[in-house]
Amino acid sequence: MKKLLNDPADAVVESVEGFVAAHSDIVEAHYDPIYVSRVGGAVEGKVGLVSGGGSGHEPLHAGFVGQGMLDAAVPGPVFTSPTPDQIAPALVAANGGAGVLAIVKNYTGDVLNFETAVELAEAEDVEVATVITNDDVAVQDSLYTAGRRGVAGTVCVEKIAGAAADRGDDLAGVAAVATRVNANVRSMGVALTACTVPASGKPSFDLPEDEVEIGIGIHGEPGRHRIKLEPADAITQRLLDPVAEDLHLASGENVLLFVNGMGGTPSSELYVVYRQARKLLEARGVVVARSLVGNYVTSLEMQGASVTVLRFDDELTTLWDAPVHTAALRW
Amino acid sequence: MKKLLNDPADAVVESVEGFVAAHSDIVEAHYDPIYVSRVGGAVEGKVGLVSGGGSGHEPLHAGFVGQGMLDAAVPGPVFTSPTPDQIAPALVAANGGAGVLAIVKNYTGDVLNFETAVELAEAEDVEVATVITNDDVAVQDSLYTAGRRGVAGTVCVEKIAGAAADRGDDLAGVAAVATRVNANVRSMGVALTACTVPASGKPSFDLPEDEVEIGIGIHGEPGRHRIKLEPADAITQRLLDPVAEDLHLASGENVLLFVNGMGGTPSSELYVVYRQARKLLEARGVVVARSLVGNYVTSLEMQGASVTVLRFDDELTTLWDAPVHTAALRW
Repeated sequence: MKKLLNDPADAVVESVEGFVAAHSDIVEAHYDPIYVSRVGGAVEGKVGLVSGGGSGHEPLHAGFVGQGMLDAAVPGPVFTSPTPDQIAPALVAANGGAGVLAIVKNYTGDVLNFETAVELAEAEDVEVATVITNDDVAVQDSLYTAGRRGVAGTVCVEKIAGAAADRGDDLAGVAAVATRVNANVRSMGVALTACTVPASGKPSFDLPEDEVEIGIGIHGEPGRHRIKLEPADAITQRLLDPVAEDLHLASGENVLLFVNGMGGTPSSELYVVYRQARKLLEARGVVVARSLVGNYVTSLEMQGASVTVLRFDDELTTLWDAPVHTAALRW
Repeated sequence: MKKLLNDPADAVVESVEGFVAAHSDIVEAHYDPIYVSRVGGAVEGKVGLVSGGGSGHEPLHAGFVGQGMLDAAVPGPVFTSPTPDQIAPALVAANGGAGVLAIVKNYTGDVLNFETAVELAEAEDVEVATVITNDDVAVQDSLYTAGRRGVAGTVCVEKIAGAAADRGDDLAGVAAVATRVNANVRSMGVALTACTVPASGKPSFDLPEDEVEIGIGIHGEPGRHRIKLEPADAITQRLLDPVAEDLHLASGENVLLFVNGMGGTPSSELYVVYRQARKLLEARGVVVARSLVGNYVTSLEMQGASVTVLRFDDELTTLWDAPVHTAALRW
């Protein structure tokens, strides 16, 4: 295993230390238990937003802490849920008096640990609503999940719910917006290579040199099928078509097209995927109103990409466009 | 070779097509010959900034076209200089009447082709000044270069010269700022893996599974030496120390610390490198006043990182902080 790490056991803490030092104008870290929050603490009167999950998907979630998005993020060990006693203080810290929305990707460990953490926070008189993201159309159930997995669409939920909180929506309103985003966003990914979890030191699966895995999960969980490597345009169609069909996209609808890198793929390739995904949407009469291309929900150094489409309406478009200032997303 | 590409011969054009479609609010592309420029064309009365070079280093340079940075970028084939007849129209297009600064990384092909292009542009009555970047302290001469190579420090030159142009400096003034940045910025990189140029289909060099190359160039050119893999803190010191010493950094000085990913390294590892580089600077009494961490000058999917330090003065700090709005850098 070749990585720029010291003791793998220290990787998450050392990375967070570097992260908050580099972005001390936006975030601060709390240790023991570890979580990252907006510098200056909760915003009085604003609904707080908290997310979290296993590390290894950076910039998700700590990279999205800041104005217009999350108030706190809780990083677990690599590909492993944070614990309830780690999540609960983040929920409490994010409360500015208007309650907190927990945004949880649909993995069994995350869902259970957030549930317990919410009980702990409620015992401290913090009102918490939870939205579970499950945008991955690849498989119905998977290695770590009952039901669909939460993947890159989570970024859309965090961005748009953050904007709703910023404009002053109450907790029920922010949760409703987050639920609406989740209901209108779908993703599907492809892996060209496996990634190596530092603590294990070995690739998380074997993929022959001439094959790719369609429908991969962000922890390298199996997808729909393995195929021989194809041109990017053909692979992109294998991702975009199930997404568009699951959304029942109709001609004339406006969407966000989000091409996400898995961590080890050059951005030049992501734009080749974007180009074809956009062509396919346009061939369906769908209008690509907004775009996002880059490494936002990664699987360590995995090579691959996912395609996410979010159906827009006027309100979601306005909330997407609202100002955001985080380490990894800003406009 | 596993990549998300179609015909490798079309990779640069298809990637640019995707890029400008995704960022049509910021950039537009011209084809035959190919270059990328700010949407809406040159800004009247402002010094134009143009850079370019081989593709494969994205987001450099097209990702830095936009307000506060470049007016045009010229992508050559992967790791190969663009041609003079491709560069010259970009120089002409970037001219808003106040002349154009060409920012060229020090590689023999780029330097020669930009020289010829400048002559072509001058024949069309465009005044052009050129600044050559050469921030890499690893080697004195290398495979493609007489003198030091231009690497990640080029981003600092483009950002700060762009801010000088935006505030209304004339061509001589913008060139002087760019020269000053180049004189005060140093970089050094490490490769954990090689990258594969699409047209060749094979890794550009062999690196044993337990070795890393210290002082690597951004095209995989040999560096100072190969060593057995070490902990990130030790590798970081091998990068930071030569940079700090070459800059003759003194206690009390303010710097920008920029940790750049080579394309295939997770951001979590970049922050581990940042953490140690910052500690080493602070141990020298140097103040890390600003930070940048991410994939900005890449080598396709190479795993590795570089450490760049820019000595700040008050003016350079102000210009660094000035607004920038490009696909890859914005604040």
